[in-house]
Amino acid sequence: MVSKLSTLFLRTLREDPVDAEVASHKLLVRAGYIRRAAPGIYTWLPLGLKVLARVEAIVREEMNAIGAQEVHFPALLPREPYETTNRWTEYGEGLFRLKDRKDADYLLAPTHEEMFTLLVKDLYNSYKDLPVYLYQIQNKYRDEARPRAGLLRGREFIMKDSYSFNIDDAGLDEAYYAHRGAYLKIFERLGLEVVPVFAQAGAMGGSKSEEFLHPTAIGEDTFVRSPGGYAANVEAVTTVVPEDIDYANAPAFEVLDTPDTPTIDTLVAAANEIRPLEDGQWAAEDTLKNVVLAVIDPAGERHLVVLGVPGNRQVDLKRVEATIGTALEIGGEVQVEAATAEDLKNYPQIVTGYLGPALGLDNVLLGTESVTGIPYLVDPRVVSGTTWITGANEAGKHVFGLVAGRDFGWDGTIECVNVLEGDPAPDGSGPLRTERGIEMGHIFQLGRKYAEALDLKVLDSNGKLQVVTMGSYGVGVTRAVAALAEAYHDEKGLSWPAQVAPADVHVVVTGKGPELLEAAEKLATDFEAAGLEVLLDDRPKLSAGVKFSDAELIGVPKIVVVGRGLADGLVEVKDRATGERKDVAVDQVVAEVSGS
Amino acid sequence: MVSKLSTLFLRTLREDPVDAEVASHKLLVRAGYIRRAAPGIYTWLPLGLKVLARVEAIVREEMNAIGAQEVHFPALLPREPYETTNRWTEYGEGLFRLKDRKDADYLLAPTHEEMFTLLVKDLYNSYKDLPVYLYQIQNKYRDEARPRAGLLRGREFIMKDSYSFNIDDAGLDEAYYAHRGAYLKIFERLGLEVVPVFAQAGAMGGSKSEEFLHPTAIGEDTFVRSPGGYAANVEAVTTVVPEDIDYANAPAFEVLDTPDTPTIDTLVAAANEIRPLEDGQWAAEDTLKNVVLAVIDPAGERHLVVLGVPGNRQVDLKRVEATIGTALEIGGEVQVEAATAEDLKNYPQIVTGYLGPALGLDNVLLGTESVTGIPYLVDPRVVSGTTWITGANEAGKHVFGLVAGRDFGWDGTIECVNVLEGDPAPDGSGPLRTERGIEMGHIFQLGRKYAEALDLKVLDSNGKLQVVTMGSYGVGVTRAVAALAEAYHDEKGLSWPAQVAPADVHVVVTGKGPELLEAAEKLATDFEAAGLEVLLDDRPKLSAGVKFSDAELIGVPKIVVVGRGLADGLVEVKDRATGERKDVAVDQVVAEVSGS
Repeated sequence: MVSKLSTLFLRTLREDPVDAEVASHKLLVRAGYIRRAAPGIYTWLPLGLKVLARVEAIVREEMNAIGAQEVHFPALLPREPYETTNRWTEYGEGLFRLKDRKDADYLLAPTHEEMFTLLVKDLYNSYKDLPVYLYQIQNKYRDEARPRAGLLRGREFIMKDSYSFNIDDAGLDEAYYAHRGAYLKIFERLGLEVVPVFAQAGAMGGSKSEEFLHPTAIGEDTFVRSPGGYAANVEAVTTVVPEDIDYANAPAFEVLDTPDTPTIDTLVAAANEIRPLEDGQWAAEDTLKNVVLAVIDPAGERHLVVLGVPGNRQVDLKRVEATIGTALEIGGEVQVEAATAEDLKNYPQIVTGYLGPALGLDNVLLGTESVTGIPYLVDPRVVSGTTWITGANEAGKHVFGLVAGRDFGWDGTIECVNVLEGDPAPDGSGPLRTERGIEMGHIFQLGRKYAEALDLKVLDSNGKLQVVTMGSYGVGVTRAVAALAEAYHDEKGLSWPAQVAPADVHVVVTGKGPELLEAAEKLATDFEAAGLEVLLDDRPKLSAGVKFSDAELIGVPKIVVVGRGLADGLVEVKDRATGERKDVAVDQVVAEVSGS
Repeated sequence: MVSKLSTLFLRTLREDPVDAEVASHKLLVRAGYIRRAAPGIYTWLPLGLKVLARVEAIVREEMNAIGAQEVHFPALLPREPYETTNRWTEYGEGLFRLKDRKDADYLLAPTHEEMFTLLVKDLYNSYKDLPVYLYQIQNKYRDEARPRAGLLRGREFIMKDSYSFNIDDAGLDEAYYAHRGAYLKIFERLGLEVVPVFAQAGAMGGSKSEEFLHPTAIGEDTFVRSPGGYAANVEAVTTVVPEDIDYANAPAFEVLDTPDTPTIDTLVAAANEIRPLEDGQWAAEDTLKNVVLAVIDPAGERHLVVLGVPGNRQVDLKRVEATIGTALEIGGEVQVEAATAEDLKNYPQIVTGYLGPALGLDNVLLGTESVTGIPYLVDPRVVSGTTWITGANEAGKHVFGLVAGRDFGWDGTIECVNVLEGDPAPDGSGPLRTERGIEMGHIFQLGRKYAEALDLKVLDSNGKLQVVTMGSYGVGVTRAVAALAEAYHDEKGLSWPAQVAPADVHVVVTGKGPELLEAAEKLATDFEAAGLEVLLDDRPKLSAGVKFSDAELIGVPKIVVVGRGLADGLVEVKDRATGERKDVAVDQVVAEVSGS
């Protein structure tokens, strides 16, 4: 197909859109690929739609290659199935909800686990029907609190979501690794570097889970990698737990005056002054910081909890949110925030800045069995025999040499702090370093959570009903377009890899003679005949400079310039990415461009 | 591609779904093409998705062929643009409305006039940029009061909608006829008979408008055709207005006792008894029926109006709704219903069953200038000098020989009654007959309504700002799938035309030898290599009978049976539509099927 710029619905813009922060957003708007319709909601213009179609085709081919079958669900769905799995409530404000004229509740689906489960239940009933992998490429809706970065985090967006159905765990593993392999191929074909990282399944339930993160400085997700190849979402990194320490010979704890030391920094400075160490200095990691949090359950009720963590670590609320519900036996998705003065008003024993778990097991302040009754969870590094400086529950006082297990106890451990550069990888593959990335895909072993909730059972080979085990797998299709724009651009504009470019060749006419336009049109037709998608810049009365800069902004991989050289039978072929140019004989240029 | 029935996500059903009334709905569900997700909301299964893709491809090709450019808008849209054009309110209960987490109003778009208008305004500013035709193939939402007939009237459905933008009326005409031509080609290629009928533009505003109706007994729309080729939606038929009659010698009217004649039938019987005609009989068409209606404006207020129509005609509320708003100078979309006792309680003069407009111009009951002040509109057949039997505004009394223009007047005329078989076509092309059809497409000349409301102006060749003129054009893509199923089926199941079938050939293995399965698989691969889509029924342990009936239910045009004949090097090729069978040599069958 030849698209002529004289009629193509396209206006390139010189100015960045005011709301755009990242390059992909700026360039996709400026180069006429997308246009904002509402916050986080975009219209695809002709060029954008072509890139999208090529991305979708690659995704579709690889899904078909593992035997997945394409279906297509509605976006507008009734409440009931999501009520059954409790996601109607758990999704909180992230779900677009509406009512129809009969006052029935509907939602715009954020993912389709429930509907796929019900569809398989509807049509299948025997283990012989399994395995089955189903997928769709479809519009999803999430009412993001802060839609940002253009297509990277939108409220209406396209995902490929697939779901596997197996009779047993071995089958689920097979489905999981089939998708894992397909995803690696998809991203490789797209030209998008991804790192599969271990992830927590979080609200989706289930067990094994990996995210496919595209490493980039503008990514919203932080992950860690080790030299030995370990990679994980920071929320999924497990702490290397130290061995217990024998405390038989540890000295007794001591409460000391530490005036004006409500922070870790001031405490460490005071400690080095009051009780200097013989060999070295006290550091933040020698202190035990006790953080009071309020956990808000789906009904809006607030539950207090205190987390005891080494003073050199920050509590990561996202990590806490992912697991604290289970730890405190609160069902559904919870929110976590710092406790407020209002939360603490019934706890006069808690002295902010000087909070500690206990001063010996006969004087316990934190924990379900304590005077406050507030659950006390600690970082896994707090093992029996470790010694800490921590609050003495009195303003201006801290306790030194408080020994875990001897002088204080806890209700459980929790992975809740940030990972630090240099922390050991849990598999012994070396020290971790942190990177940022964008989540491009995600694979989950859901297990039997949805099948149980929605009663998806099939007869096994003995004629007994068995709950089916499921996997759920997503690729952000819209987001892939943005990530590609992010990964493939320079200061002049976009620079698409060939397989996803909106066209294969961009023919530019410079100069005014009708013979130039004719030659360019013939060339465009020849390219088209060779199976290429062609952009032809035939706009009259525009300077060569404007045309070149538009071509570089749009980013088609090969630019062919039909200009003065034509008199000598030559056109110029320019590689958008490298900037390399060469003159090529007109009758060789189709071979040159399509063969390269 | 070869899809094997042993793994294809498909279960054919023996029973019709309980909620299905029409054949397309029953068969598309039974043959495993679609599955209901909610009232009027369907999931596309693998076979359905293949038909849909083929239909979409045909639509896309024909749109591209007239130079229309594909874009893709969101389905979730902000309220503001629809507020500006007043459609947020006018759409009434048919619009799905929702709020986001910031309490901003959104809707699920039923059509996209506003957004296309704003997009062109956003990017274009000169007459040189025009014309431009833009289209999308996209999910639409309408909260139908009675979603019915499966895909024929759904609440989430796919439409191709396009919009043309021109600087002048001549351009709009060109755009309109380009779309008209494309639509005729689309439906011809789909194999779907359509009749373009004149339509009223109704709520969409604008002037010239045609619907493309597929004639079928189950159609919801009634239209009329003449032997000379006139075709129109019943709402758009214009009455052939008779000439005025000279009433200089007409006798005076007479009020007569007509006890117990509240209906037209009883009145006609009484008239023939009391005042028999010398030559013939009184008929319903000699009476003037006065119907009191309540017109409900967008704010919910009720306005009374009386329509005077020949007694042999029924007032068509749909027709009234389309034009009464304009006639009464009420803005926005109105609803119309019969007046209630409550509506009439302040009008003791109105005697139900005996209502008439006047007994001479000095005794006027109906009309804006009358004692009731209720507007009085009449059918165009009520012209000056016509003589009527009508109510005398007293129980049990009618007036005979009441002459229009002499004895009563009216505020205006209205096209509001049903068309009767035999009515003359307005273009003189003969008597009309009525038929039923399904609306498959619709083309509108919107004119400047949307461009004015949203301020879409471009500079003309004199550097002056001009309002752009627009057209809007829709094809029901989902509905086309259903209409095709409706048009192409028999008592055994679906029977698709080749161009939209989910596959080109359906290979059935009958009998048990492994050599049969091998031969069938080889054949399937050969078909695939020849560029055909293949279904291969390789299901083990199923009788030939079950496989044949599934093949006939699914409706792929060519069925190839690999069975006993294979020993003699023969397979059977069956034409699904005609039932014709022939034995073909295995090495000839690819040529036979792909060549036919």
